[in-house]
Amino acid sequence: MDKPSGKDKAEAPQAAAFRAFAENFRWDDVSLLAYKEEGTAPFKSITRQVLFKNPELACELRYFEVAPGGYSTLERHQHTHGVMILRGQADVLVGGEIRPVKTHDLVHIPAMTWHQFRTRGDEPMGFLCMVNVARDKPQLPDESELQKLRADPAIAAFLAPR
Amino acid sequence: MDKPSGKDKAEAPQAAAFRAFAENFRWDDVSLLAYKEEGTAPFKSITRQVLFKNPELACELRYFEVAPGGYSTLERHQHTHGVMILRGQADVLVGGEIRPVKTHDLVHIPAMTWHQFRTRGDEPMGFLCMVNVARDKPQLPDESELQKLRADPAIAAFLAPR
Repeated sequence: MDKPSGKDKAEAPQAAAFRAFAENFRWDDVSLLAYKEEGTAPFKSITRQVLFKNPELACELRYFEVAPGGYSTLERHQHTHGVMILRGQADVLVGGEIRPVKTHDLVHIPAMTWHQFRTRGDEPMGFLCMVNVARDKPQLPDESELQKLRADPAIAAFLAPR
Repeated sequence: MDKPSGKDKAEAPQAAAFRAFAENFRWDDVSLLAYKEEGTAPFKSITRQVLFKNPELACELRYFEVAPGGYSTLERHQHTHGVMILRGQADVLVGGEIRPVKTHDLVHIPAMTWHQFRTRGDEPMGFLCMVNVARDKPQLPDESELQKLRADPAIAAFLAPR
């Protein structure tokens, strides 16, 4: 995997009408970015590419890719996500539910709902995520929230380091 | 191909967290809809599925599928589109440019820019299209606009019935 760049020059408006899909789930004129700033939240082996972020569009479309064994941050927020898996497989936590998902499956993350994506198997897992441009910051669970989540043995197993 | 239903009951908010990808580029709990009302604009062999349309999201994500030999309406509007090809191949007109595109390529349709998708080859062509929920109605070209477009021989060939 290429090393993601730390900062977000690629988040400038992308005006080109055509941008081709390239090797290894990269796109022409789309930078490989860090998922988040290191140390701000727990996550593992995940990158971000901003596919559409234009002044006239009220949402962005991002592509996140998680290497085998990796996971997104366990978080919640007022804004919602519309997600489509684009490659590979994952186990996904949404609220109290954990489901296996695969390419082209849809996941809707409602407001203020704990969610996390974890890869399944030996392949990278990539997903599209549509989100409002104007949105609140994600919240991380404190110890009492984690205890509530772990009260469900399936969620406890999902959250345990593997 | 299943027969699309005429009206849009599937455009109600889709609250389910998980909706699986099914056979033939259908999704669980997502209705197959007509592209547009018949007779309102020229198009051929195209269906629509609304993948995400939620009150909290400022954009919708739709999946359009064009059967071999089909095409979308030649139109323009103030709102813009963020498009990702999801299956197959197409020739795409954006403004003065025609490009062949294939799975996972990105297309940005700027404001007030004539655009049309036409399938390429013998496979169905499907694409995701992100668009603002609040948007203007598409405009169709009148004869004088068509003449301007056809002044470019490549565009004239693209627009000619095949």
